[in-house]
Amino acid sequence: MISTNEYFDGHVKSLGYASAKGKSTVGVMEIGEYEFGTSTHETMVVIEGEMDVKLPGSSNWVTFKSGESYTVDANEKFQVKVPVQTSYLCQYK
Amino acid sequence: MISTNEYFDGHVKSLGYASAKGKSTVGVMEIGEYEFGTSTHETMVVIEGEMDVKLPGSSNWVTFKSGESYTVDANEKFQVKVPVQTSYLCQYK
Repeated sequence: MISTNEYFDGHVKSLGYASAKGKSTVGVMEIGEYEFGTSTHETMVVIEGEMDVKLPGSSNWVTFKSGESYTVDANEKFQVKVPVQTSYLCQYK
Repeated sequence: MISTNEYFDGHVKSLGYASAKGKSTVGVMEIGEYEFGTSTHETMVVIEGEMDVKLPGSSNWVTFKSGESYTVDANEKFQVKVPVQTSYLCQYK
């Protein structure tokens, strides 16, 4: 089964599936600013577009572009701003 | 707007958005075999998983893995077999 997920009134949508490594989603974010919480360790990879990210414990925004990635531990919160519609891969473990 | 698309009774789902280069989708295919038709030139990139592809005019199946890509011209048909749930990026132009 491919799960369909919507967050922030449909401003973020994702499709969930099983990969060789575990659970993954591919998704798209509308232009905007979001706070996400993790329940597992997440690796986020920008597919197209751009994400400005404030990682847990950081006060700085860091920009991630196509092909770049970052990780967030379980049970953390992080902020994301996207200046253009942005697609991503999220790998959970 | 992020569009949500379903094909083959939900065995293929995708999310559509605008990229810097044009229109794109990220999607997921269930295990199975599919025939797709193009209305524009498409570049397909495997994100996770694996696609066996029979390109237009070819009688051979060629395997594309994570990070690998292929292109299909407008108004063509091509066959895809996926042995595991597989995510992809499709760029249209």
